[in-house]
Amino acid sequence: MPDYSSRLNARIQQLHTPALVGIDPRWESLPLSIRTAAQSRTTNRLERDAWAFECFSKQLIDIVAPLVPAVKPQVAFFEQLGVPGIAALLSVMTYARNAGLIVIADAKRGDIGSTAEAYAQAWLAGEDQDAAAFPADALTINPYLGSDTLQPFADLAHRRNAGLYVLVRTSNPGAVEFQDRVAEGRPLFEVIAQTVQNLSESTRATNGTFGCVGAVVGATWPTQLTTLRQQMPAVPLLIPGYGAQGGTSSDTAGAFNSDGLGAVVNNSRGINFAWHRQPYSEQFGEARWQDAIAAATRDMIADLAQNTPAGKL
Amino acid sequence: MPDYSSRLNARIQQLHTPALVGIDPRWESLPLSIRTAAQSRTTNRLERDAWAFECFSKQLIDIVAPLVPAVKPQVAFFEQLGVPGIAALLSVMTYARNAGLIVIADAKRGDIGSTAEAYAQAWLAGEDQDAAAFPADALTINPYLGSDTLQPFADLAHRRNAGLYVLVRTSNPGAVEFQDRVAEGRPLFEVIAQTVQNLSESTRATNGTFGCVGAVVGATWPTQLTTLRQQMPAVPLLIPGYGAQGGTSSDTAGAFNSDGLGAVVNNSRGINFAWHRQPYSEQFGEARWQDAIAAATRDMIADLAQNTPAGKL
Repeated sequence: MPDYSSRLNARIQQLHTPALVGIDPRWESLPLSIRTAAQSRTTNRLERDAWAFECFSKQLIDIVAPLVPAVKPQVAFFEQLGVPGIAALLSVMTYARNAGLIVIADAKRGDIGSTAEAYAQAWLAGEDQDAAAFPADALTINPYLGSDTLQPFADLAHRRNAGLYVLVRTSNPGAVEFQDRVAEGRPLFEVIAQTVQNLSESTRATNGTFGCVGAVVGATWPTQLTTLRQQMPAVPLLIPGYGAQGGTSSDTAGAFNSDGLGAVVNNSRGINFAWHRQPYSEQFGEARWQDAIAAATRDMIADLAQNTPAGKL
Repeated sequence: MPDYSSRLNARIQQLHTPALVGIDPRWESLPLSIRTAAQSRTTNRLERDAWAFECFSKQLIDIVAPLVPAVKPQVAFFEQLGVPGIAALLSVMTYARNAGLIVIADAKRGDIGSTAEAYAQAWLAGEDQDAAAFPADALTINPYLGSDTLQPFADLAHRRNAGLYVLVRTSNPGAVEFQDRVAEGRPLFEVIAQTVQNLSESTRATNGTFGCVGAVVGATWPTQLTTLRQQMPAVPLLIPGYGAQGGTSSDTAGAFNSDGLGAVVNNSRGINFAWHRQPYSEQFGEARWQDAIAAATRDMIADLAQNTPAGKL
């Protein structure tokens, strides 16, 4: 029974890239053809948007499944659409799993005791996609409530061969505000990083490098990324902030071990809506939005290969 | 157009109590009659549990709606059941609104930028229950990502006359771990409390006491509760941890202003499953579980009235 990190790393090595594609559908950015088709199906806004999100996301999956190891649906965009949105999310996640992709649900959940357990039960399907209501391989979670609230997630993830990514240093400008407060010589995010390292180490197989508890560290903080890679040797990283948020491939270089493993780098808007921006808008335009997505994905893969240890994969 | 705190306080004053009833359905704790009825309807576990959760929650609402100002559905328990669970949650929230209750969705959401906006759009219906996919009057949110990530929630809450409760000092034992780290003479939770006070003050009507941004502070920390009440004069409080988690009514006394306003005190398991414990198990038993819920709710109301400034309501 392969654990989460083994499954993820096998896919990374098979496709020679740590590129992770976010699934972040937004109605106003979708191709007009999909919006028009959705409008002709229903006048209920939630159902209309949910149909369009599902249609777009599945086409996105078809394009990226042969190219990247994993996708990261952003749960908020689906949740916004209520029951039809959640049904669309479930369908998209299942579709991605069936396409062979590792699915990381970006839900940033967190709560205490038995409530944390309920969230873990909701999302952590792990190896067996029928084991949870939502078939995620891994889930993002928030540590503010304390490490006692991370434990139920870690326990279930370990048992199900699922993964977690704990928010350690987020990619937004305001991340410095609370996460960087220094007490006893250490910023808060380093204390949380130590907790995550310990948790992950406790789930690590004796012959493995990584446990099942990962960390989210933004590409927008390259110095901290390098330090955190060293402080958390058993922790797989998820790096948001590449592309639209300003992080470059070089900024992420410190996140990898010398063999190119240790991190996945996410790109959401830059790939989902590639045809809205140069050079893809001119080269493809909306008429060939699928080709724009494929090109942007290939360009990201090449960029990471050239400027990070992922080139050795 | 009454803002959230005005609406909440009007209900509190009308019913003379700040008691808040959590809606925390758990399959194994439900009355056997409901479980049996659910089992006879479907063999699909998620649909079976969702039907039972909805049936139980609506009966709970029928009992408590004439007694308390507000209910707090715990989203995790419904999310655990996937699409049928989310559909049940929506139905339960709508039912509670229609019964005149203020509905606080306990979802502990949080994310950056436009993703935070999507979560706000999902939950913050506010005054007009059709304004969002889920008709919550208020939502619990997590501050770890930084105050730039709280702003989109505060903006929409203000616009919709909805409310927020930011996690400041949670009720679990591990709350001390990260939330109490002292930097520059102040624990993290006090720094976050100051942020919440500023945010709420910026939404406060000139003739009002409270803004729309509240805080979650556990009854399990009475000293901090009293300090935080003083440090956040514009902030309505949500107090978990009463009852099953060990907090007493006296522990919550410091959360109130002298007029009895300023806080709602939550009880979930102690009311939802009152007939499982003394004195209600002996007095009512499972056959009269509804009467046990009503008695436990009345007892909590009396307890708060006797031992806190809520007695002056």
